Amino acid sequence: MSMRPVRNPLCCLLLVTLPLGIFFLCLWSLKPDRVVDVRYRFPGISEGHLRQAVWEPSEKYAHISYKVKEIVAGLLPKNGCRCEKEEPVINLPFAKHLFHQVSVQQFEQVFRETEREELKKRREQEYQQFLQRSHSSADVMIIAKANTPLEYPTQGLHVQPLKTIVIPGLSLQAPSRKLYRVNLTATLGTFDVAAEVDEVTIRGDGQVHMSLSSSRLDNLNRQLQFVTYSNTIFNPNTADTVQLETDGHQAFFVIKIRHATIPKLYSSEDQPGSKGSYNISGLVTIATKTFLRYDKLRELISSIRKYYPNVTIVIADDSDKPQKIEGDFIEQYFMPFGKGWFAGRNLAISQVTTKYLLWVDDDFIFTANTKLEKLVNILEKTTLDLVGGAVREKTGFSTTFRHQISVEQGGEEGDCLHTRMGHYHVLQGFPNCVVTDGVVNFFLARTDKVQRVGFDPRLTRVAHSEFFIDGLGILHVGSCDDVTVDHATKIKLPWSSVDENEKTYKEFRYPKSSEANVQLKQRLFYLKNRFKCMVRD
Amino acid sequence: MSMRPVRNPLCCLLLVTLPLGIFFLCLWSLKPDRVVDVRYRFPGISEGHLRQAVWEPSEKYAHISYKVKEIVAGLLPKNGCRCEKEEPVINLPFAKHLFHQVSVQQFEQVFRETEREELKKRREQEYQQFLQRSHSSADVMIIAKANTPLEYPTQGLHVQPLKTIVIPGLSLQAPSRKLYRVNLTATLGTFDVAAEVDEVTIRGDGQVHMSLSSSRLDNLNRQLQFVTYSNTIFNPNTADTVQLETDGHQAFFVIKIRHATIPKLYSSEDQPGSKGSYNISGLVTIATKTFLRYDKLRELISSIRKYYPNVTIVIADDSDKPQKIEGDFIEQYFMPFGKGWFAGRNLAISQVTTKYLLWVDDDFIFTANTKLEKLVNILEKTTLDLVGGAVREKTGFSTTFRHQISVEQGGEEGDCLHTRMGHYHVLQGFPNCVVTDGVVNFFLARTDKVQRVGFDPRLTRVAHSEFFIDGLGILHVGSCDDVTVDHATKIKLPWSSVDENEKTYKEFRYPKSSEANVQLKQRLFYLKNRFKCMVRD
Repeated sequence: MSMRPVRNPLCCLLLVTLPLGIFFLCLWSLKPDRVVDVRYRFPGISEGHLRQAVWEPSEKYAHISYKVKEIVAGLLPKNGCRCEKEEPVINLPFAKHLFHQVSVQQFEQVFRETEREELKKRREQEYQQFLQRSHSSADVMIIAKANTPLEYPTQGLHVQPLKTIVIPGLSLQAPSRKLYRVNLTATLGTFDVAAEVDEVTIRGDGQVHMSLSSSRLDNLNRQLQFVTYSNTIFNPNTADTVQLETDGHQAFFVIKIRHATIPKLYSSEDQPGSKGSYNISGLVTIATKTFLRYDKLRELISSIRKYYPNVTIVIADDSDKPQKIEGDFIEQYFMPFGKGWFAGRNLAISQVTTKYLLWVDDDFIFTANTKLEKLVNILEKTTLDLVGGAVREKTGFSTTFRHQISVEQGGEEGDCLHTRMGHYHVLQGFPNCVVTDGVVNFFLARTDKVQRVGFDPRLTRVAHSEFFIDGLGILHVGSCDDVTVDHATKIKLPWSSVDENEKTYKEFRYPKSSEANVQLKQRLFYLKNRFKCMVRD
Repeated sequence: MSMRPVRNPLCCLLLVTLPLGIFFLCLWSLKPDRVVDVRYRFPGISEGHLRQAVWEPSEKYAHISYKVKEIVAGLLPKNGCRCEKEEPVINLPFAKHLFHQVSVQQFEQVFRETEREELKKRREQEYQQFLQRSHSSADVMIIAKANTPLEYPTQGLHVQPLKTIVIPGLSLQAPSRKLYRVNLTATLGTFDVAAEVDEVTIRGDGQVHMSLSSSRLDNLNRQLQFVTYSNTIFNPNTADTVQLETDGHQAFFVIKIRHATIPKLYSSEDQPGSKGSYNISGLVTIATKTFLRYDKLRELISSIRKYYPNVTIVIADDSDKPQKIEGDFIEQYFMPFGKGWFAGRNLAISQVTTKYLLWVDDDFIFTANTKLEKLVNILEKTTLDLVGGAVREKTGFSTTFRHQISVEQGGEEGDCLHTRMGHYHVLQGFPNCVVTDGVVNFFLARTDKVQRVGFDPRLTRVAHSEFFIDGLGILHVGSCDDVTVDHATKIKLPWSSVDENEKTYKEFRYPKSSEANVQLKQRLFYLKNRFKCMVRD
């Protein structure tokens, strides 16, 4: 009974404070959201703004004459580009027959004249938006001025979105004066200090503009060792430009703002092969696409099994009335009839779960010289992403189809594509191998890299180099001529019977209207890759 | 008859010079190949070498004391990382029931103790090789020293492989002296000049080390405006560090060596929709994966057709005894039975040829509120790559499943993964939309970006955020709650019959041994993404 009076006030207190507490907690958690503007800027980034061309050489020396060194000046990028056959050094008679033909294609011509202007306009708009998505202030030219008392980092600064880092390397080496001051300004983040040093005045800590000043230079420099940057406006991959300033001097540097790069490793839980050898079935999946050539496909599979009984084979099949391929370690995928060549390739690679994939055409035949271990060894030991082998015809002639690809930057008309048979260098330690840009359709490659580039399913019929063009700058490509696969003969004797499937295959593979397929490829080069024209050497 | 004596000498001349000419042409074209070493360096790049940690603050100021500012210092990256539940600010009673659970997973524990050391070693080797493939001198920290007379570019220099550029911004602002000299050194290329200026001595033009000197500073600076760099050692994506030097002063800057970035645009040849509207069938493909739920799949398709009669629907199907789905604009792909969830997703997206793809689960139902035009509008107007909608249950409750993902860098043990429900900012101009890292399985996205990230086919059963984790730093993700799709009810009344397919579906989707699936996901987090542990808020 004596407890009663005590309990009432306590209850009242709880009945009041608990709801109030919850109310304020809610208020605190409902703080207004920051707003971010991710809309495209209009009219966008002019290409010149990003190119080095925007930098103008100082007028100060314009009066000093010079003599052009043609042999070097000729190598520089031109303003715009053109696809032309190079004039041969020596005009030999019968050159046309002695040397291979150079072909030039102007892609705009595949479109009707009436639609060209509109298509170019649409393409340019798409391209401008692509530039805005893929560029940041990390791509802009910055010049470090001479004779500045500022010391600062020019490369290597990264911060994760909404995280904080110390900015290393900041220092002021100014001549003696009464007061030393350094100002920092950013756009996508704020500055602060991780520690405070005596006799330094800090203004704007926690803001986009911070100022540090002191009458003692050493103290200011000690303080500068503790300057931090915190990203406040989220973007998964961008950069912030920091302006550093002291009396009469300015410097700029960039902090990259990016989520951590997540690796896609294929560390295996399986036991590696016995000492010195590779566990091929654990490391490699063979991928192919087939269309109405089951006899050839079965021959391929049976030849693979002679040497690699347990390697998984992935088959993308867009045949009409498909036949099931039976067997262990075989995965067959059925597609809509005639969906297409690169669609099938893209399907096949999308299903690979091993570290490497080996691409083969469905009419290849494995031989004792098809040593996948050699190809695996190269990708295990080098930074190459893809290594091609050689395809051997029944005539004995074999091809690696090594070709170089380069792109000359053009203006709004588009860029110029050059392909040329050949390679760049021989690989140290692998005398049968070279580095190049494109190879034949028999290659071993890192699965994650090939999946990242992909085979564009818009390419329905004949296509090849489009994959390597899409892979430029992404794939490190090599080619070795000592690992070969045979190519089932295409030679048809006049009296052999031709079955229905083969007829249909030929209609798709070598269409009478191959013109339509060429046009499709040219349309894509123009609209997708933004090319103006192509020279094939 | 009188011509005879003249013809003989001519014939002899040709018979001699032509073979000789061809012989020398062959010699010239067979000049020895340059050799390049692309083998992995051993022992590789230490992570510290790449991290900012390698920069040591100057010892000069070590004697000056400081007071740590905890609130900022606490935000800095730690040395290593740990996955821990954060202590709640206020320890409320029944907190466990009021707030959602925080879960922590240590991935190493999924492996047997005896194999952990070996697996970590193998993973570290894979990771080192990944670092060597993906890093270059463009990632290394560089500090610009104070009070140097050198002026030079610190960012923005790019050259295509084996091509030449002018190096802009080079200048010497030295005090008066008898002779001014500037030296340039590179590794992967050579220097030269595009033009020659009087009274400047050039040594080493065309070499990796070039020296320019003059008694007249203006002339030297004019000459510096014509300095060129030519990449000579091919690599499709790397960087060269240039050392710039003058008496007593050094500076470093980087030239990126990279093939041109080839865009993958989807400029359409089709006529855009009537003024103010979007041509949805031309812009969007709907992608889904199905497994033994044809009734739900057919309901989905019929609901789509009510609003979008012509949109292409791509179906990846790994059912046993598959049923053909008939209808225009439907593409069905048949996979090996039970091949898997992410394999099916990867297959479906690999076949999309439109600019955008809409992912839906096979048990969704389109309603009048499933306005794809709204989602298209956001991707057309912003730099977002993917925008999720909201999935509405029969109860009326709808979810956007917005979640943030962050990675704390750890050491050799691996990194720490944090996921937390929530978003970052609201989008300017789109008040119902936010920016975040991951969303629900109902989203519209740029086809090329989703194809680039891909759905890892190694994830066979339940998986979701793994896609967004693989996409960190690559995908710019948004979420809008005003575009919804309905979710077919999962509520099963006790007296309804359960068909065989549904039983099998449940066995795969909710396996009794769900432990096995959790283990698979943890194995992949550990071995593939190099995570140590995960905190799920």
